[in-house]
Amino acid sequence: MLVDKTTEVLAALDGDRDAAVARLVEWLRIPSVSAQPVHATDCVRAAEWVRDQLAGVGFTAAVRPTDRHPVVVAHHPGPGKDAPHLLFYGHYDVQPADPLELWHSPPFDPVIVDGPHGKRLVARGAVDDKGQTMMWVEAMRAWHQVAGGPPCAITAIIEGEEEIGSPNLAGFLADNAKDLKADVAVISDTGMWDVDTPALSTRLRGMCYVQLDITAANRDLHSGMYGGSALNPINLITRILGDLHDENGRIRLPGFYDDVPEVSAEQRASWQSLGFSEHDFLGAIGLSVPIGEKDRSALERLWARPTADINGIWGGYTGPGSKTVIPSQAHAKVSFRLVPGQDHTTILDRFKAFVQARMPADAKAEFQVFSSSAGIEVPTDSAAMRAAMAALQDEYGRPAALIGCGGSIPVVSNLKSILGLDTVLMGFGLEDDQVHSPNEKFDLRCFHQGARSHARLLAKVAGS
Amino acid sequence: MLVDKTTEVLAALDGDRDAAVARLVEWLRIPSVSAQPVHATDCVRAAEWVRDQLAGVGFTAAVRPTDRHPVVVAHHPGPGKDAPHLLFYGHYDVQPADPLELWHSPPFDPVIVDGPHGKRLVARGAVDDKGQTMMWVEAMRAWHQVAGGPPCAITAIIEGEEEIGSPNLAGFLADNAKDLKADVAVISDTGMWDVDTPALSTRLRGMCYVQLDITAANRDLHSGMYGGSALNPINLITRILGDLHDENGRIRLPGFYDDVPEVSAEQRASWQSLGFSEHDFLGAIGLSVPIGEKDRSALERLWARPTADINGIWGGYTGPGSKTVIPSQAHAKVSFRLVPGQDHTTILDRFKAFVQARMPADAKAEFQVFSSSAGIEVPTDSAAMRAAMAALQDEYGRPAALIGCGGSIPVVSNLKSILGLDTVLMGFGLEDDQVHSPNEKFDLRCFHQGARSHARLLAKVAGS
Repeated sequence: MLVDKTTEVLAALDGDRDAAVARLVEWLRIPSVSAQPVHATDCVRAAEWVRDQLAGVGFTAAVRPTDRHPVVVAHHPGPGKDAPHLLFYGHYDVQPADPLELWHSPPFDPVIVDGPHGKRLVARGAVDDKGQTMMWVEAMRAWHQVAGGPPCAITAIIEGEEEIGSPNLAGFLADNAKDLKADVAVISDTGMWDVDTPALSTRLRGMCYVQLDITAANRDLHSGMYGGSALNPINLITRILGDLHDENGRIRLPGFYDDVPEVSAEQRASWQSLGFSEHDFLGAIGLSVPIGEKDRSALERLWARPTADINGIWGGYTGPGSKTVIPSQAHAKVSFRLVPGQDHTTILDRFKAFVQARMPADAKAEFQVFSSSAGIEVPTDSAAMRAAMAALQDEYGRPAALIGCGGSIPVVSNLKSILGLDTVLMGFGLEDDQVHSPNEKFDLRCFHQGARSHARLLAKVAGS
Repeated sequence: MLVDKTTEVLAALDGDRDAAVARLVEWLRIPSVSAQPVHATDCVRAAEWVRDQLAGVGFTAAVRPTDRHPVVVAHHPGPGKDAPHLLFYGHYDVQPADPLELWHSPPFDPVIVDGPHGKRLVARGAVDDKGQTMMWVEAMRAWHQVAGGPPCAITAIIEGEEEIGSPNLAGFLADNAKDLKADVAVISDTGMWDVDTPALSTRLRGMCYVQLDITAANRDLHSGMYGGSALNPINLITRILGDLHDENGRIRLPGFYDDVPEVSAEQRASWQSLGFSEHDFLGAIGLSVPIGEKDRSALERLWARPTADINGIWGGYTGPGSKTVIPSQAHAKVSFRLVPGQDHTTILDRFKAFVQARMPADAKAEFQVFSSSAGIEVPTDSAAMRAAMAALQDEYGRPAALIGCGGSIPVVSNLKSILGLDTVLMGFGLEDDQVHSPNEKFDLRCFHQGARSHARLLAKVAGS
């Protein structure tokens, strides 16, 4: 048993609070938008920046190339070879910042503003995932300062393609499996129940994200000359995609629900006890009536039922005024959120078949898949989950809520299938963080208590 | 009866052929895109240019302001006050040139290239409508050179808002009705049957062009966090617009066909005799199967049946790669081509009602109307139409086809309702002119024979 240095480590984090924020701000200034080729060198800069942070707190750290954006890999032996071994995962890439005109301050020029829970940091990536990644990096720093290193062996991987579906991560994990051995994984990329109530996420939805490109005539046409005879691919794409849901909010791909399991009565009761108000959830974004399957509860729809959303659509003339064109092409980006049990490649095939069944003779459909991952269910009875629950209980003085998460973190299924690791999903985001939206923010209180919770987690896992 | 100078006038046009093309090229270099505010001063330049052309051939010509782009008005008394009086109409504005990347040469840097019918001029506006307008301006020039002026009294109006639905023209005509008195109007903004067969258009479709803006949540959302609960306005807009047509190609707005008259058996037979091949028409643009109402013939669908086309659609993330966003807004530009009998304001109301009937509680629909005009049927038994038929017979050695036109020229209904004028629609475009598309062109043979036909028309109307 190690001497418990948790109290000193927490004091070190408290004393270093402002400097920790300043470091995060530095990282946020690098516009590491993985989706946009123009930001490729920014992605490298963001990787090098966090590599240097880890190297500065006793890690052996390297930026390792992939076919697109590099992965940062870092190791710390901890107290010795019998120590428990955690693998921390984060990502340094961020979503595109557009629409830029809706930001109140530039997305890559972080500002600190007041909010109902104190100061908050506003920038693209503030919470997703630079802020959440820096919580555990700061925990490592505090352990380094107080005890010369963390009380567990640590492997860290910080990738740069999470926001584009981690296309190179599975290969990277497989190629480096030996170097990435650990007992369990920890990820901070999810949310709390509320600012006072910590949470561990036990479910994640999977994802199938595909771009549909439809081509009809070999050039743009005048709608007066050709209207009534020539196929309009925008008319067609609206007809196809408008058919995705039935009047009860169910998705109409044949067989889509075949492998969707019913939630257990126990699970349902546990979620019920959380007292979630969909009215408030929607009210905060100016809505009042939920969409989705009419016969399902709100948390079921958000955490345990699949969805189909058109994330982007474009075609024809989109400038000011009018242009009487029948365009040659129309495009849409469509994503399905999937639940554990659904196979993402099967869903892709079903979507393709759904589209092809609705294509007239003269139109051609092409598909580009941008991400594809399975839904995840995390076992709650592991030693690591018990350690996380204890750490959060100590930090917040109340038990962590065991919740679902509607989003997708593809790496979780890869960590399981390739490295054999279960994942503890301990995140500190709040519902109003505007993740993927203009004015993304992270409450500094969450950032700080998140770092403290991570510091505590290391001690709990180490057995103190 | 005037001495017939037609032969000399035609010789003058033949001798001046290259200079006429050079003048048109000069006009085409001015990017007078009426839809785009950035080109407002170019519109003024294009107006001044053609004013100077008319002034140079004996007209009293002026650029007259409207609320947006000015109108050129010019007068020539002809041989005296008992002479027949024609009102020529053209437009100097052009469609936006995008998508620019599909042009083989810059749209406002005209080039002359070889085609199956000889040389052709490629530029935005080459045929629509600068090229067709310059045909009659060149005819005026030839009459001016040979005879000191045209054999009829002429009023010319050349507007700059045709491509945006002529929002200020009706008011302008009403305000200046006294100054615009004439016996009949002539417009060159339509097509020939083929390069050897001239045509007079006796039908035009009307138009109702409207932009639909749908707003749901008060900001863009993360599809993982909100998918399954929050309304997606792109899902919604595809569902609404995907519902515009039934499986037989009929438009589903309630009452949409109430005022659509059946074409007479005589009309149907006349069109049948044209030997139109829809197979070839569609084959030229890479299509094979017509859309539209299944139980109607091709020319009926193109000329005498209404349509609904989505001319543009946009919303959400449209950049490279993926972004898992549920956007706040979605947009579409929708146009209805209407036939004589349908009231364009009624159709707009029906479209609004169709959309509103499909709007859930939380979504807001807004409508911007960009153009609205009635369909037109031109009487074929007037003196002016007989003169036009005779002029075309002389020029081409065969009778003109009496055809319909699927497009809309809103001014025709305004000329009728405000000034009491019927219109002769004598145009010289070809089917492959790529009107409103990249690489718009005008065959120089059409341009030249069009000018000659106009010169002949003046003589025929004057009674020689």
